[in-house]
Amino acid sequence: MVVPEMRVLPFRSVTIVGVGLIGGSLGLAMKQRQLARRLVGVGHRQSSLDRALELGAIDEATLDVAQGVADAELVVLATPVGLMADLVRKAGDSIQRGCIVTDVGSTKAQLVSTLDELAGGRFRYVGSHPIAGSERRGVDYAKADLFDARLCFLTPTTSTDERALAAVTELWQALGATVRIADPGEHDRLVASASHLPHLVAAALVNVMTADAMSCLGTGFLSTTRIAAGDPRLWADVCLQNRSRILEALRRFGHEIETIRNIIEHRSEPQLLAWLESAKAGRDQQAEG
Amino acid sequence: MVVPEMRVLPFRSVTIVGVGLIGGSLGLAMKQRQLARRLVGVGHRQSSLDRALELGAIDEATLDVAQGVADAELVVLATPVGLMADLVRKAGDSIQRGCIVTDVGSTKAQLVSTLDELAGGRFRYVGSHPIAGSERRGVDYAKADLFDARLCFLTPTTSTDERALAAVTELWQALGATVRIADPGEHDRLVASASHLPHLVAAALVNVMTADAMSCLGTGFLSTTRIAAGDPRLWADVCLQNRSRILEALRRFGHEIETIRNIIEHRSEPQLLAWLESAKAGRDQQAEG
Repeated sequence: MVVPEMRVLPFRSVTIVGVGLIGGSLGLAMKQRQLARRLVGVGHRQSSLDRALELGAIDEATLDVAQGVADAELVVLATPVGLMADLVRKAGDSIQRGCIVTDVGSTKAQLVSTLDELAGGRFRYVGSHPIAGSERRGVDYAKADLFDARLCFLTPTTSTDERALAAVTELWQALGATVRIADPGEHDRLVASASHLPHLVAAALVNVMTADAMSCLGTGFLSTTRIAAGDPRLWADVCLQNRSRILEALRRFGHEIETIRNIIEHRSEPQLLAWLESAKAGRDQQAEG
Repeated sequence: MVVPEMRVLPFRSVTIVGVGLIGGSLGLAMKQRQLARRLVGVGHRQSSLDRALELGAIDEATLDVAQGVADAELVVLATPVGLMADLVRKAGDSIQRGCIVTDVGSTKAQLVSTLDELAGGRFRYVGSHPIAGSERRGVDYAKADLFDARLCFLTPTTSTDERALAAVTELWQALGATVRIADPGEHDRLVASASHLPHLVAAALVNVMTADAMSCLGTGFLSTTRIAAGDPRLWADVCLQNRSRILEALRRFGHEIETIRNIIEHRSEPQLLAWLESAKAGRDQQAEG
């Protein structure tokens, strides 16, 4: 069976694989904005699927990925990045010819290359990455407005179908996001600095705290380390998938820590003030999150 | 003139030197809880003093520190730490014999030693440090409940007058804070980790961001770097006053960054998971700020 040519939204049938915080929010948002007539959720725990059904994030649920994707015009992969390729392999021929497959993974180069290969002209893959989320896990924290006013990267390659790219663009825009097109490698380099480095830095800060320092923390420490409460499994995936670019970001950051150590070591007040002022100016430029 | 022996709260006349976020909040809090019959503010800009008067954080204002402290039973130093000793020298003999002097400085060892010496048995100094604040500056951000449910360090030494310590303890408790007694050096070691390190780490994170990474930041980066918007002048003071302990905290933190770099470099998944889980467990233990 062949999916008919590009149409405007809504999709007739959408399958979300992985109905956690992101997948669940996507379901709620698509239903609220009537972007999918039928929403199927695929999960690996019945209890999470039951909760997603209860919250109205999906219309139907299954533990079997092949069964879940069988009727889909659009499949969105919303599991940890490390599981996505295997799930697509497992779904296999159940994915309809011409079906649009996208994902919400926060690393792209390795994944896009694997999924382009698995697609092999049979289904139409477009990599997505909405810059949205939380340190929370699970569909209980899903929100219909999670993608509203957020940035969403799309990472097409030379194999990407133009009409599928247009459809996925239209979807994210309909969810309120601003779409930005980037090369998968360039995307990974950017998020290594903007997202993965802050996570590791926050985690490192928690890990160096002694028990007695933990007893006198202020609100500064708490906001600085909020994201360190994120899902370790998900972040381990990210670190391994985006390894070389994260190593480079950590190297630059470690060098900056050495810089400020030297400035303080040498009691260089003008340099110290300039360094702190540069950080304040950079931070002040950003809107509050 | 000798200040009469210890009484219970309220103080007859209190002078706050430096009416910014902390000094202003102290004024509002003391007035709201009727802990001072008369509140004098000393500042170095008439406009800030006018604003503090307007907001009701102080009853009277002066630019002249000697004049401002002349009638005070209690003087609270709430300027950047680096200015405090000079202001006390400037106030000189105008500080009444027996007057209680405290401060809200976030570094203690160097300051306490200088102020103990300046006190010289004439006035009664007790070091304080309420763990409260904000990245904001100025009396416009002052809040009467800033110290409520916060920790406040007191750092007495062998020269500290017992009754003055009891009075300052009573004051902070009346403002809603939990008082913790610590040696000045021990205090500085704790806050170097719990407060000064997070600030420098947040600032370093902003300083390594390239312009293109700045264009795709998520909420994680924003909360992680919130405190980097703090006052550079104040933080430069802190870094120089608590230099050796901050250098030690930066050294430990730099080592932790090396640790996670090595783990990712060697693709050691079990170690990576354990490291991320330890950070999550540490962060989850803390109440949200």
